[in-house]
Formats: sequence, structure tokens, C-alpha cells
Amino acid sequence: MRLDAGLVFLSDSRTNAGVDHVNTFRKMTVIERPGDRVLVLMTAGNLSVSQSVVNILRERLERSDEENLCNLSNLFDAARHIGGIVREVYQRDAAALKEFGIEFNASLIFGGQIAGEAPRLFSIYAAGNFIEASADTPYFQIGESKYGKPIIDRVVTCRTSFEEAAKCALISMDSTIRSNLSVGMPLDLLIYESGALKVRNHVSIGPQNAYFNEIRTLWGDRLRQAFTELPDPDWAHF
Amino acid sequence: MRLDAGLVFLSDSRTNAGVDHVNTFRKMTVIERPGDRVLVLMTAGNLSVSQSVVNILRERLERSDEENLCNLSNLFDAARHIGGIVREVYQRDAAALKEFGIEFNASLIFGGQIAGEAPRLFSIYAAGNFIEASADTPYFQIGESKYGKPIIDRVVTCRTSFEEAAKCALISMDSTIRSNLSVGMPLDLLIYESGALKVRNHVSIGPQNAYFNEIRTLWGDRLRQAFTELPDPDWAHF
Repeated sequence: MRLDAGLVFLSDSRTNAGVDHVNTFRKMTVIERPGDRVLVLMTAGNLSVSQSVVNILRERLERSDEENLCNLSNLFDAARHIGGIVREVYQRDAAALKEFGIEFNASLIFGGQIAGEAPRLFSIYAAGNFIEASADTPYFQIGESKYGKPIIDRVVTCRTSFEEAAKCALISMDSTIRSNLSVGMPLDLLIYESGALKVRNHVSIGPQNAYFNEIRTLWGDRLRQAFTELPDPDWAHF
Repeated sequence: MRLDAGLVFLSDSRTNAGVDHVNTFRKMTVIERPGDRVLVLMTAGNLSVSQSVVNILRERLERSDEENLCNLSNLFDAARHIGGIVREVYQRDAAALKEFGIEFNASLIFGGQIAGEAPRLFSIYAAGNFIEASADTPYFQIGESKYGKPIIDRVVTCRTSFEEAAKCALISMDSTIRSNLSVGMPLDLLIYESGALKVRNHVSIGPQNAYFNEIRTLWGDRLRQAFTELPDPDWAHF
């Protein structure tokens, strides 16, 4: 989510390749150089593709003489850098995957702030192209995005506070977890405050997390209560 | 939805082939022979496929010497009859559609009651195969199903009343309409009471429908209120 106040990122950590293979891998990568830049990358889709992209990004970071996420001067160029690496992985892997009937499937959310410009948020596609969040579209979702979309549409605008936005992201993820087996704990939540150039909060939320369990229980109770209180259909008036 | 009390069907009427071509077509077909049977068919996917299936079903109904939806003695055979017709349309159209890069895309929900057995509900796939709803899985959704799934998962069991179930279906559809342009009014809502062998309520809900507008406004307000009342994250406790 790209708010006036900053950025809120939330990812789950469940990856699956059919029901027999449900594994937990972190999907959020954070690059923080306090005072200079904070960059956050989240991935969805084929795990081998995502991991290849993240590994190549890390390799480039170690070679300071080449273009990398720490020496690019703005977020747009950084998004283009990542898109280029997605294309490299595509060149290497897509044909072999296709032989096995597997689509080259990757989507990424990339955002943060580099000193000298405002925080920005991008959605990067498997083809390496990307779009940027705007005031009208202040958030992106990737992966199993539909179950949790309605509550975000109702609640989040660019004027939403961190607290409300983080709450909304967690409630949205809760709906997705309940409706889809392939999404699961722990969750990674990261809050970035505009202009801070360092991470404000970065927490891992496991199944025992008291706050998450409190709001998901409360939310379920309130939803059912609100639902029950809606008037029943009056057939005479249709 | 297949409840102990009976069946609840809800469909929208928006079909689209890209943003320039958004049209309104009814997706619910009802066959009612009071005292003998009530059959309801809803369709999603490629509209030409759905319309072909419905047209062939109607043609067969006029030939009483052949197997058709009015002379089959149980719902399972009726579902198999419909699946067979989906396969006929596939044989005729799939290759030509493929030439134009169009997938043979069809999914159907079929339910009702025939005298002599309990109400039943089926989900029929493009391949003509089908599954039946059970006490554990008391509902099916087809088409843009994900946005509206969470509220149904939270509220509906086979013991839910008609009123609650109809309300839930409408609230679920409202979430889908808000999050996806390709789903739209008017809605068709049909209630069937177990054992009645006639339709109980069948209403069309347009954009001016007072009840639907009341519950969608109330629901939106209550959701936002419930959401606002949830405690904010306390970062010290993560």
C-alpha cells in the first residue's frame, strides 16, 4: 500500500506445488541502507523463478562496479533493473519449464524510497514490464489476491494511517487464509514511514501472535453480528 | 446453496468480452413443472457456449420421445444429460474457438428437486463431468467467485435459513460487483423450499431495488465501523 504516510507491505510465506507439497518460504526481501534507501521486494508465482530473481539481485549487489539496487539513483530505474533480471531468468528457464507444461509465472511488488525522491510502489510482471501505484490505485496485490480485495477497496485510500492500513492488510490476509489453503502463516509485515529512509517496523506474525489472533477473532464475530443485524428480505417488496 | 430448508440461487447478468463489450444477458434458466420438478441452471464462461447449451436443452424438451430434463427421473441423470450436451457443444465448437486462441470455457451450476428424491445441487465443468454439493460443502460458485467467497465461508452452513442465505448471497455478490467490473446488475434470485416442487420466490433485483440498496449500504457502513473499532497494532507487543 502506498499511503501519504508511507508504505505498508504484507506477505504470507506459504508456497505450494499441489497439496502434497506445501512449504514455508519467506517472500519478502528487504534492502536497508539507513539515510540512503529502503527497498522492499515481494514475490509471487513459481518459487524457483522468484528465488532466481532474488539471488541474482543479491549477486549484483556484491559487484559495486555494475548496476545494482544500491547504486541506482531512483526507484524507477530500480524497478527496471529488477524487470531486466526477471527477463534474464525467463531467457534461461522458460523454454525448459514449457517442456514440462509449466508456465513462466512470476509477479513482484517492489517499493521503497531512495534519498532525493518520494516513496514509490511498483507492480512488476513476468514479462519484466511494470506499473506504478498512484493516488487512485494506492495498493497492489499479487498471488491469491481476490479473496482479500473487497475489504481493501472499502477501507484504504492514500490518506489512511499506518495503523489502519496495517490492520486492513492483516484482515485482508485473514480472509485469504480462510478461503485458500495455499496461503499461510507466518506473515511478514513491514511499515515504512515517508522520508525516514529506515524501516519503521518489520515483524513476523506467527500462528501464536496475540494481536493477529485478537483482530481475526473480533473481526469474525463483528462480521457475523453485522450480518445477522441486516434486515431479512421482505419478499412482498420485490 | 444447498440448505436443509431448500436451495438458494443467485446470478448476475453481466457478460463481457473486453471493456468495449459489456452486455447484459440472463444467466439463470428455470424449468418448473409444479408437483413434479423444479430445475435451475446457471451458467458462467463463454456466452456462446452457455447459450448453445441452454438452446439445445430447450430443443430436447420439445422432443418428448427423447431423453430430456422433463422426463429424466432424478437429478443425477439430469446433470449427466446436461454434461452430455456440454460435450456436444465442445465437439462442435472447441476446435474453431482454439483457432482464434479462445479457450472452451464453461461452468454450470445445476440444482433443484424431482418428485421422489431430495433437493440436489451440482457443479458441472466444461468437460461435462460434475460434482455434487454435500453437507460439508453446501454451496458452489462459478465465474468471478473469489471476491465473494469469504463471507459465505463465514456464514453459510446447511442449517442456515432461506432469509440468511439469500442475504448472504446478496452481500457476497455486492463484494464481487464492487471489486470487478465484469459482474453487474440486475441480479436474479431464486428460492426453492425443500419438498415444495414449485418455486417459492424468483425476483429480479435491479439497481433501484430498495432492499438490496439498503443492505449493501448498511453492510458497507457496518464493515467500516467494525473495522475502525478493531484495536490498532501495538508494535511493542510483536
